[in-house]
Order: sequence, then structure tokens, then C-alpha cells
Amino acid sequence: MGTEALAELLETNDIAGMQRWLAEHPPHEIADELGRTDPVTAILLFRLLDKNEALTVFEELDPPDQQKILSGQRDQAFYELVEAMDPDDRARLLGEAPAKFARRVLAGLSREQQKMTAALLGYPQGSVGRHMSPETVPVREESTVEQALERIRLKGADAETIYTLPVVDDHRQFVGTVTLRSLVLAAPHQRVMDLVNANVPRVQATDDAEDAARLMQEANLLGLPVVDSEGRLVGLLTVDDAIELIETADTEDIARQSAASPWSGHYMSAGVGQLARSRVIWLLLLIVAATLTVNVLQVFEATLAQVTSLALFIPLLVGTGGNAGAQAATAAVRALAVGEVRAGDVLRVAWRECRVGLLLGAMLAAVGLVIGTILVDFPVAAVVSISIVIVCGWAAVVGSTMPLLAKRLGIDPAVVSAPLVTTLVDATGLLIYFLVAHVILNL
Amino acid sequence: MGTEALAELLETNDIAGMQRWLAEHPPHEIADELGRTDPVTAILLFRLLDKNEALTVFEELDPPDQQKILSGQRDQAFYELVEAMDPDDRARLLGEAPAKFARRVLAGLSREQQKMTAALLGYPQGSVGRHMSPETVPVREESTVEQALERIRLKGADAETIYTLPVVDDHRQFVGTVTLRSLVLAAPHQRVMDLVNANVPRVQATDDAEDAARLMQEANLLGLPVVDSEGRLVGLLTVDDAIELIETADTEDIARQSAASPWSGHYMSAGVGQLARSRVIWLLLLIVAATLTVNVLQVFEATLAQVTSLALFIPLLVGTGGNAGAQAATAAVRALAVGEVRAGDVLRVAWRECRVGLLLGAMLAAVGLVIGTILVDFPVAAVVSISIVIVCGWAAVVGSTMPLLAKRLGIDPAVVSAPLVTTLVDATGLLIYFLVAHVILNL
Repeated sequence: MGTEALAELLETNDIAGMQRWLAEHPPHEIADELGRTDPVTAILLFRLLDKNEALTVFEELDPPDQQKILSGQRDQAFYELVEAMDPDDRARLLGEAPAKFARRVLAGLSREQQKMTAALLGYPQGSVGRHMSPETVPVREESTVEQALERIRLKGADAETIYTLPVVDDHRQFVGTVTLRSLVLAAPHQRVMDLVNANVPRVQATDDAEDAARLMQEANLLGLPVVDSEGRLVGLLTVDDAIELIETADTEDIARQSAASPWSGHYMSAGVGQLARSRVIWLLLLIVAATLTVNVLQVFEATLAQVTSLALFIPLLVGTGGNAGAQAATAAVRALAVGEVRAGDVLRVAWRECRVGLLLGAMLAAVGLVIGTILVDFPVAAVVSISIVIVCGWAAVVGSTMPLLAKRLGIDPAVVSAPLVTTLVDATGLLIYFLVAHVILNL
Repeated sequence: MGTEALAELLETNDIAGMQRWLAEHPPHEIADELGRTDPVTAILLFRLLDKNEALTVFEELDPPDQQKILSGQRDQAFYELVEAMDPDDRARLLGEAPAKFARRVLAGLSREQQKMTAALLGYPQGSVGRHMSPETVPVREESTVEQALERIRLKGADAETIYTLPVVDDHRQFVGTVTLRSLVLAAPHQRVMDLVNANVPRVQATDDAEDAARLMQEANLLGLPVVDSEGRLVGLLTVDDAIELIETADTEDIARQSAASPWSGHYMSAGVGQLARSRVIWLLLLIVAATLTVNVLQVFEATLAQVTSLALFIPLLVGTGGNAGAQAATAAVRALAVGEVRAGDVLRVAWRECRVGLLLGAMLAAVGLVIGTILVDFPVAAVVSISIVIVCGWAAVVGSTMPLLAKRLGIDPAVVSAPLVTTLVDATGLLIYFLVAHVILNL
């Protein structure tokens, strides 16, 4: 309901109404509307927010939308917004922004924030360092619970989280973490060293951010300590950033599974050109790969001229093989992404998927035999059925092993998209089809 | 490295080595190995864990694996494990288990845990009620920060989280939440009512669990209050459960995008029959739908006999159209899932995707013209090219609007899978191809 009303308020330029609408909606819904709308309207709406609300809404926006909003702010508001951002959010914004914009942001920051942001930007794109919070509240292992809580009270306001606290020893070396929960539930005179979780997983700042996020999920952590190559603490990855990393990774994997490149930003605010760019490369590669199907059919053109009814089943056969291959590829890519399958499992996976494919092929062949016999005749139907069994088994093996082989070669398994598998299976499927036809029909 | 070693230890039945392996690995990695292995080995490994570690590992398992482990436990260990589970994890386990197993679990529980579990199981599958934690620590709005912290110290040990605390008024009505962070950072004499977040989003126990999890992500919450139809607090959805809900939903959506049904459990422990079952229904429906392509080709059989070279480009043409449709469908399903697109956006989406499809089609047509002219001749290549443009535009519109229409009809948009769109586009694409051929080639 809210949305329909807002569109109308924008249409009639009803400022008082817009202010009412903004007051009635929570920050994340306002942020969603700003992401959906054009830049001028977004900036107008944003200016109507009161200062505190504006900051909260701003933090909920995706980096491209933050850039869109910032570009419309006058200097003072611009600098206030970027100064108030968490360092990791700021690094994410700058990582995607044009150089001129990034320089303007960095120039306006306080010395301290400038230093922190520059440090984060020093880590490679996609690494944990780009997403961690450098502002933590380390507590000393020899302090008492009471002293630790006192320190948290003094220093905690600036930290992104105080629920996971890094513990350091006398020499400021990282020894583990303690949770605020255990501090609050413990007796005040207990020592932090008796509560510390020394076996907590930790990652290096240069490690892959998605892997770190999935580790947090598996180990049920709200904060994951990040260390440098010498084991010194440099920050914490917080759970809200981990969720966002996982969501972004899933969105990218899903886009790749359909042979599109991921793009950052809101679907509704992406332009026609942007959407086309994210899809065109793979479509071009695939149409070139599909030339193979033309070659195979040319080889068998005489057979086709002799038994024209074979042509009738080409889309059904390649479609079915493609579907079976796409299912196997999608399952393998996902299992790799969530860590259920490793690259070393390739033979086990191939053998299982081969049996799955043949079993599915047998069931589909039965249907194919009926369809073929009714629509054409039994011999052609038999060719179609036998081909379906072989093609499904082959498609399942190709689809499931290609992502694992890609991973072994250090390529993102998600580039083994369903359309890629389908296109490869198309050409080989036709080859199988005509070879079976030659044997069965004695051509 | 760890894994190779474990496989070897299992092979040689080296118990001392297995114990060493278990001691050296964190609970979530042990849980992963238990999920990958056969039931007997899993139970053996589990029995080698010491009691506390065993419970932590058990909590990290997926429900089907928990059931696998429990089935191999003697009565005492069985009851200790189920009694120690969080009520929401227990409800999730029972929701998927056979009736006989569920009765055994419920019979062994303490009165209090039995009551809580039965209450959660009273909510429908997939609702927030099944996933929330009923054990919370409500604080009163008129207490001071000091009193609230004292209460948390007394009651907090049993609660799943104490980072988000529900606040209640004099009449035990839910008024909002307060975070442990704000209590710890506040002065001891401050009142809770001055720190309470009264506008915090809340959901009903019967609401959809995935929607609630995505709301938590958007609003950056660690705990989401769950109320009954009269606004009374019944529990909290915690962030670890929210991440798991989002991951499960993404895995299901990804499986559906390849026309497979989701199944619960580890990919490596799923049997051949289970994998085949998850895929067969859609493959059967799709092969029946593909009969349409045979019908279309039969109608144009005379054309095919006259210009046999038209047959050569059938897989390339339907493949390209299918790929373009699959990309649009996947983008639309994902945008709906993460809330960037709503069912009401159907016309805006269709218009944009139509232009994207035509633009992509034009680029692909250029390639098709070159391939066709080289391999066959210019007139046939022209037919292929013109068809590609029309088919791509059409495929993008069909692919993007079908998920939105499904949503409007109350059907899960993810059932509009890439293979479904591909199959539908195949038949219409062939129709377009032969109509274009008739016009261009003057047949």
C-alpha cells in the first residue's frame, strides 16, 4: 500500500505527504525505495529525512545507490555522511567508485578515518580485509570480568560490535575471543583468561571474504577475528557483513548459473544497456559453440534427407539432455559453494551422477517411446528412446564433473553454467542420436 | 589434508588415530565429515567424541544427519542429546522425522521441554514459529539498567541469545526491544524505557520464516521479536537461524531454477534414488511439453523436406532463445526473492526485458548471419538471423514475466525454472523460425 501512495505523492509533488510517508516507514524500506527510483527523486526524498534518520537510511543502501545519493549532496552534508560511515562500508563504496569521486571522499575525512580506510583499501578486492571492522575493543587476558566490562563501557561506543571481543596477552598478541554474553553471565571477579575461547577460528585479512563468511555461518559466530600474516589482530568480520557477503555470493552464483555476469546494484534501477552487457558475452560465446551442432548436422545431412522424421525429434532430444545436464551442474555448483563437495570428490560424484542420469534417462525413454510411436513410427521412436538414455547419463556426468574440474583448475565453478553444459551436451547428443539411428535403422 | 588422513584412519580402523583426528578438528568440520559418511561410520565417530564436544557437534548437524546419529544411540545418550537441544532445533528435527521416531523423542523429554516443543510444532511448517527460540529473557521497562543486567545474569544462561532482549510493560505486554550493547554502554541508574527501541520490526509466529529472515537481514537485526495474534511475545528469531533459513531458501531456489525439487540433507550422503526422485517429475513434465516442438516441426515437415538446410540451425536457434529466456527468468526470480521486484512491476519489467532481449538478439543475429553464410548460404542465414532477434525479444519477455505472474497467482516464482522457460520458448521459437522462412524464402 505504502508504495502506491508514494508514487502518487511523487507524481503530485506533495512534499508534506512525502514527509509523512518517510516518518511512517522503517529505514530499510525507505532505502529500498531510494534504490528503486531515479537519482533526482532519490536525492529529493533523502533531503527530506532528518539528520539521524538520513544516516541510518544511507547505511542501508548498496554502494552504487550510496554514490547516487552522495553525488547530489552539498559539501557539508557529503562530508558528514562519509565521515560517519563504518570504515568497511566506506571501503566498499570507494572500491567501486570512480577515482575522482574516491579522491573527494578521502580528502574530506578526518586523519584517523582516512588512515583506517586507506588500510582497508590496501587489501585486495574480495578479501576479508575489505569487509572487516578495524575498530575493535581488545580486552587483556589477565583482567577481571569487572575490569573488562569497564573497558568496554569506555571504548565500546565506536566499535561496530562489542558482542565478540578479541583477547590479547601481555605482549598484545591475539590469544582468542571472549563473548559479551560470557562476561555478563560470569562473576565480576573471574578472570578473562578463564572465559577465553582460544580455539576460535580465525582468518587472514587477505583470505577470501566469501569463504570466511561461510565459515562464520558453519561455526555459528557473530564475529570472526581477522589477523595479519604474523598473527596480530587487525579486525573483526561481523555477522551482518557475513550475511551480506553470502547473499551477494548467492546472487552472483545464480546469475552465473544462467550464463549472465553479476552486476552490483538494484535490479529495478539497472538500465537496459547494463542488463544487456551482463548477459551478452556468454550468449555470444554460446552461439559460437552452438556452431558445433550445425557441423554435426551437416555431417549427417544425407541421413536427415533419407529419414526426415529424425529431424522432428531434435529439439526434444537436445532439450531433454540439456535439462538433465543442467540439473546435475546446478547441484554440483551449489554443493561446492556451500562446502558439501570438494574438488577431490570428482570420481565419486561422476559415478553417482552417471547412475542418476541413466536411471532418469530410462524413465524418460519410456515416455519418449510412447510419444514417438504415436506421432511417427516405432523404429524412429526406438532410436529416440535409446538416445535419451545414453544422452541423459552422459549429460549428468558432464554437468556434475565440469564444475569440480573448474575448481581444481582454480576457476570459479559457477562459470560452468547450465547453458554452457546444455550447449556442450547439444552437439554430443546429436552425434549420439545419429550414431544410434545408423545402427538401429541400418542406414 | 585432514580428510585424506581420516579416510585412511577409517580404512585401517585406527581408533586412537580417529580420536586424535577428532581432537584436532573444530566441531563444524567434524559435523561436515559425519554428514558425508555412511551411518555406521558416523555413529562410530560420534561415540568417540567426549560428551560436551558431542553435543556441540550434534547441534551443527542437519536434521537428517541428526536423525542418523540418534538412531544409533542407546537410550540414555539418546535422551540426553534430545533434552539438551534448543527447542527450535528439536522442532525442526521432529518436523521431518517419521512419527515413530518423533514419539520416542517426545516421550523422553522433561515436562517443560515437552511443552515448549509441542508449542513450536503447533505452528505450520515453514512459519517463523517453527524456527524461533521460545526461551527469552524479558526485561521490564520501568527497571534500571542495573536491575535489568542483574536479571539477565540470573536468567540468561538458558536463553539462546541475550543480545536482543524483549521489553515488557507492567501488564506483561511487549513494548519493544533493548540490546545488551545499549545496556552495557548505559549508566547503571538509567531506565530501560529510555533505551528501548519501540519501532523495532516484529513478526507473527505464523508468518513465513524466509520473509522474516530476509527482514532481519535488511534491518540488520541480531534478534527479531515474534508475537502472537494478540501482540504478546512468544519468542525471538535469532540471526544464526535467519542465516540458515536464507541459505536453505537460496539452495531451494537454485535447485528449482534447474527444474529439480529441493531435498534436505548433505549432497554427498544423498542416494542415487533420492537424487533421481528430486529431478524426475520436472523432466517428465518437460519432455511431455517438448512434444509441442515435434508437433510444430510436423506441421512444417514439407518445408523441411524442401529446404533441408533449415534443419541444420534448429539446435542453434532454440538453444540461443532458451539461453536468453533462462537469463531473464533467473534474474526475475532472484530479484523477487531478495525483494527488489514486486509482482506489480510486471509491465515495467516486461518492457525493459523486451528491449534487452531485442538488443541482445541484434548482436547475436550479426554472429548468426556470418556463421550461416559461411556454412550454408545467405538466404538461410538471413532467416536464422531475423528469427534470432524476434526469438530473443520474445524469450526475454516470457522469461521475465512468468515468475511475476506466478507470484501474483500465489505460486512460488522459483518453479518458473530456466528449463521450463527454455522448453516453452523452443516450440514458439520454431514457429517463428518457419514463419520467417516462409516470408523470406517465398515458400
